[in-house]
Amino acid sequence: MSRELIGYIENSKELLQEALHQSLQKLLIPEQLKQSMLYSINAGGKRLRPILLMASYDAYANNNKKVLSSCLAVEMIHTYSLIHDDLPAMDNDDYRRGKPTNHKVFDESTAILAGDALLTYSFEIIAEDPLLNDTQKVEIIRLLSACGGPTGMVGGQILDMEAEKKSATLEELERIHTLKTGELIRFAIYTGAYLANASKEQLNYLTDFAYYLGLIFQVQDDILDVTGDEKKLGKRVGSDQENEKSTYPKLLGIGGAMKQKEIYVEKAKNALEKANAEDSYLMALTDYFSNRDY
Amino acid sequence: MSRELIGYIENSKELLQEALHQSLQKLLIPEQLKQSMLYSINAGGKRLRPILLMASYDAYANNNKKVLSSCLAVEMIHTYSLIHDDLPAMDNDDYRRGKPTNHKVFDESTAILAGDALLTYSFEIIAEDPLLNDTQKVEIIRLLSACGGPTGMVGGQILDMEAEKKSATLEELERIHTLKTGELIRFAIYTGAYLANASKEQLNYLTDFAYYLGLIFQVQDDILDVTGDEKKLGKRVGSDQENEKSTYPKLLGIGGAMKQKEIYVEKAKNALEKANAEDSYLMALTDYFSNRDY
Repeated sequence: MSRELIGYIENSKELLQEALHQSLQKLLIPEQLKQSMLYSINAGGKRLRPILLMASYDAYANNNKKVLSSCLAVEMIHTYSLIHDDLPAMDNDDYRRGKPTNHKVFDESTAILAGDALLTYSFEIIAEDPLLNDTQKVEIIRLLSACGGPTGMVGGQILDMEAEKKSATLEELERIHTLKTGELIRFAIYTGAYLANASKEQLNYLTDFAYYLGLIFQVQDDILDVTGDEKKLGKRVGSDQENEKSTYPKLLGIGGAMKQKEIYVEKAKNALEKANAEDSYLMALTDYFSNRDY
Repeated sequence: MSRELIGYIENSKELLQEALHQSLQKLLIPEQLKQSMLYSINAGGKRLRPILLMASYDAYANNNKKVLSSCLAVEMIHTYSLIHDDLPAMDNDDYRRGKPTNHKVFDESTAILAGDALLTYSFEIIAEDPLLNDTQKVEIIRLLSACGGPTGMVGGQILDMEAEKKSATLEELERIHTLKTGELIRFAIYTGAYLANASKEQLNYLTDFAYYLGLIFQVQDDILDVTGDEKKLGKRVGSDQENEKSTYPKLLGIGGAMKQKEIYVEKAKNALEKANAEDSYLMALTDYFSNRDY
């Protein structure tokens, strides 16, 4: 990974961390609720979605202050989904990113409500942003709700749960991940370029790019669950196999999964070129997420 | 209750039922998720919030088609909050409106996701409404997220849970209910009048009205838990006392609670007059909700 890309990611993460913390800290809400929301937001993570959103804007324009509210919103929605996913009734995970999950630190009811609060607040953040006009706000909110709701991420989570009970085909697997992970990535990529006034054609190619990037991300996730380092990942490996979960390595073998990832990488880069974004950080980020070890 | 008001409520409920059902039925989403969302939406209920929203519009203008999306959104948010409230980790209720709760019919994880889906989708419904302009959409979304999120309903739910562990004062009780129930009622009353182009002054008085109406609703809820008929209510009575919950009857006695309700009713009607809405259905609805037996 180039030193430039490392700097870009580190700077973005720092900026995001500060903005995320501030946007929750300033809320006049019950302390227990605030602490629970802050706990999961501050737990770190890759900040994949907001960094992609920034990089997508930076591919077409300068001065990306306009994207900050969308970055916060998508990270809050991602975070709420993790809190609910970890609940005993869902995946029943005690650790996330190497730290106890929200419901282990607080309690289940607080975790449920903290998730609900982050989800609801994400829309307020966009609606209140003084840097966006009303048309932009509506377009972003429309896409965020479509990508985060029943036609998007939540739909993917239901399918993912159902798939645990049977063995899925490669096609079904792609559909699950496209909804569960891919739709918020699509939101991020689209919104950044949209706010940078990318053309309709460019936005279409970026939608293709986002589709493949989401799959790359997921294949690598599956691969790391087999070959990854628990310390770097901050979570147990091998849990997919234990849960008899349908994964790329299970369907294709590790070699086959790696090969499939390379196919997606090529298609993603191809789409980026067509979107005239071949010199942007999106290109380097594609390799970065394809080869990440955490 | 006048025959006219009964007709108004029945007509509104029928129209809402059809629109709610359609808006979910048309979604291309996993079947299990759709059934779970539909189950709770179709479980009926008073439709208090959307009826108030319509009545608030009708107080100032004719032809209330413009409010339908806001009506659906607020009812979906209310419904999601009930689904999450009923979960084992929260109130652990097996029955709601005389029917098994969502997680009893489906399962806990589906119920959590159905709630998340209804919440997220409610914003999409507003953002997609062709009858509203962008400024209206943003104003409505801004208020809906503020009233439904951590500064509103979700904040109230946390306070309500905390209050179960100690005995609350009348002031604390009012704060809990204003957030937990009152804020979505405020959204309904404000949004109806806003879309009917009520003046700023009228909107301010209506905000006062909504505040007292929310409290009336809650006092009556508490009274019914002592004196109500289980069959009419579709839920067990006496649960507040069992749970040693702070309620108006507990703090003031039944007579004191009734008296307190009358004070709120007078203040509510006073605010309605100042908002020039004394001849609207809002006036009759105030008495209706104050005296309801279910």
